[in-house]
Amino acid sequence: MTTFDYASLDQIARLGATLPQADAESRAAAEDRQNQLTKPPGSLGTLEELAVFMAGWQGTARPGIDKAQALIFAGNHGICDRGVNPFPQEVTAQMVANFQHGGAAINQLCRANGADLSVVALDLDTPTQDFTKGPAMPGAACLSAMKTGWEAVDTDADILLLGEMGIGNSTIAAALCTALFEGEATDWVGAGTGSDASGMALKAKVITEGVALHGQGAPLDILAALGGREQAAICGAVLAARVARIPVLLDGYICTAAAAPLFATDPAFLDHCLVGHRSAEPGHRRLLETLGKAPVLDFSMRLGEGTGAALSLGILRAALACHNGMATFAEAGVSDG
Amino acid sequence: MTTFDYASLDQIARLGATLPQADAESRAAAEDRQNQLTKPPGSLGTLEELAVFMAGWQGTARPGIDKAQALIFAGNHGICDRGVNPFPQEVTAQMVANFQHGGAAINQLCRANGADLSVVALDLDTPTQDFTKGPAMPGAACLSAMKTGWEAVDTDADILLLGEMGIGNSTIAAALCTALFEGEATDWVGAGTGSDASGMALKAKVITEGVALHGQGAPLDILAALGGREQAAICGAVLAARVARIPVLLDGYICTAAAAPLFATDPAFLDHCLVGHRSAEPGHRRLLETLGKAPVLDFSMRLGEGTGAALSLGILRAALACHNGMATFAEAGVSDG
Repeated sequence: MTTFDYASLDQIARLGATLPQADAESRAAAEDRQNQLTKPPGSLGTLEELAVFMAGWQGTARPGIDKAQALIFAGNHGICDRGVNPFPQEVTAQMVANFQHGGAAINQLCRANGADLSVVALDLDTPTQDFTKGPAMPGAACLSAMKTGWEAVDTDADILLLGEMGIGNSTIAAALCTALFEGEATDWVGAGTGSDASGMALKAKVITEGVALHGQGAPLDILAALGGREQAAICGAVLAARVARIPVLLDGYICTAAAAPLFATDPAFLDHCLVGHRSAEPGHRRLLETLGKAPVLDFSMRLGEGTGAALSLGILRAALACHNGMATFAEAGVSDG
Repeated sequence: MTTFDYASLDQIARLGATLPQADAESRAAAEDRQNQLTKPPGSLGTLEELAVFMAGWQGTARPGIDKAQALIFAGNHGICDRGVNPFPQEVTAQMVANFQHGGAAINQLCRANGADLSVVALDLDTPTQDFTKGPAMPGAACLSAMKTGWEAVDTDADILLLGEMGIGNSTIAAALCTALFEGEATDWVGAGTGSDASGMALKAKVITEGVALHGQGAPLDILAALGGREQAAICGAVLAARVARIPVLLDGYICTAAAAPLFATDPAFLDHCLVGHRSAEPGHRRLLETLGKAPVLDFSMRLGEGTGAALSLGILRAALACHNGMATFAEAGVSDG
């Protein structure tokens, strides 16, 4: 794979023009095939759009998914010192163990839909700094976590699914969105793993403090100052996939918000990304509208881990099964009206 | 299986009180399990609801899908003499052959999601009568088609998927809905396989004529007078599944409308039915609201064949994979907050 040899966040921010684009010819060829298959044109709706999307990024009229890689990045957050999450931070490592033993939702969904799952735990014993006191991470630490994410990507994969685990990271998601986009902290805060109204008010309060301190920099500087290691790793993985022209399935609110600093740097950075589902977290709807992305699924889920991405992988597989397996009108001897 | 020994449509209409119900204890046990799994309570959203639904109908706290049966019923319609469909009626048999040779969308989706597909063609060479001239079928023919549907159900199946094929049957769907529920024909008519504005106006016109002739009877008499054989067969299959306590995945507009005479007879007749997706046909949204059913998926599909049911089977399988495969907080040693 392409080596991660970036010396600064600013160097990454200027990558835009160098990144590969979807292949327009492959897209057109896939659209042409869809119109010859034994069905009224357009009648497979979103499944047709997904097949054409995959064709563009894989650069072939007949895209496929032999190898689906799912990556979960896990991190811990100094902002938990402010009491923003009802669960103790130890749960992050406990859930990492649960992933490794196959007991979590993401394990079942990856098995059901044929994805190879890996978990990357990022310095769980050393949470980032409380962002109300100073930057969560120095720029160099953010760059290092991006490198970890970049290097975790299997460039032989046909699709990459991304997810996260980190007690407190719904506060991180809302902080990033508040700093990067329109709206107050209260517009971006939700219940997360189970905050009540006073818990949500506390989340908004600490975010407002953090954004006042760190909200003015470049998007990747905001990632370092308000984000966490798993957010930076997700950005690194998104970029590594892009360089290898691997389409990406992002998960819900926290995962999408992790990639948002890339969008704020250059919206085209996320052109190869689908969002697997719309989370029940209210901020996700707002974020998807901001990014101009329609989610594949909408099941009122709010678990993270990559579960929405893994669930939507089954839909992508079904879309490609139709695209590649159906007979054309000519092949089937069916009158085309 | 229970023999189909009903002598009249009226006898079927009075079955309601004899039908089995979902098992409340199994539902409660499944809900209890969901709340012990390693996730915030409720965070799998619709997946949790689907697992609990399956538990109730299968009568176990740990529902499963070893055998999924998919049935497509195909029929031809005299109303095509009025020019309501741009495709020739021969396409119904051509598509049945396509199903048998594995070339249609439904074949790919059944294979992708593990359903055994059977196609039942109902007297394709003898279309029903043009319902603007008289009843589409005598009551006895409707009963006979219901028996065919009933007997096609494999009572060893863990779930039943239903679909249909029949040139002209989006007009049948709209006619049934217009006769059974509120609204004018124009409220229930859509483009179907590809009608333009004048085609849709023609569909509404013939439906208005048909409903004026046959819209006043009991719902199952309306099924005979305005419906077709595949609609009657779907009703028979829905009832056979209910007697065997097999949950059902209905498909889109035409399949749901086919089962609507059962709902209009007694809303509880469809308690064991999920709707796999919301079709792009505008009448389907209205129909789902009338039935009080939320679809599993919403992908702007409008193909029929059972494609929405087969696609949603993958979601059901994923829901049960989580329900049965996840560790509890106690098993995984994860703090539960």
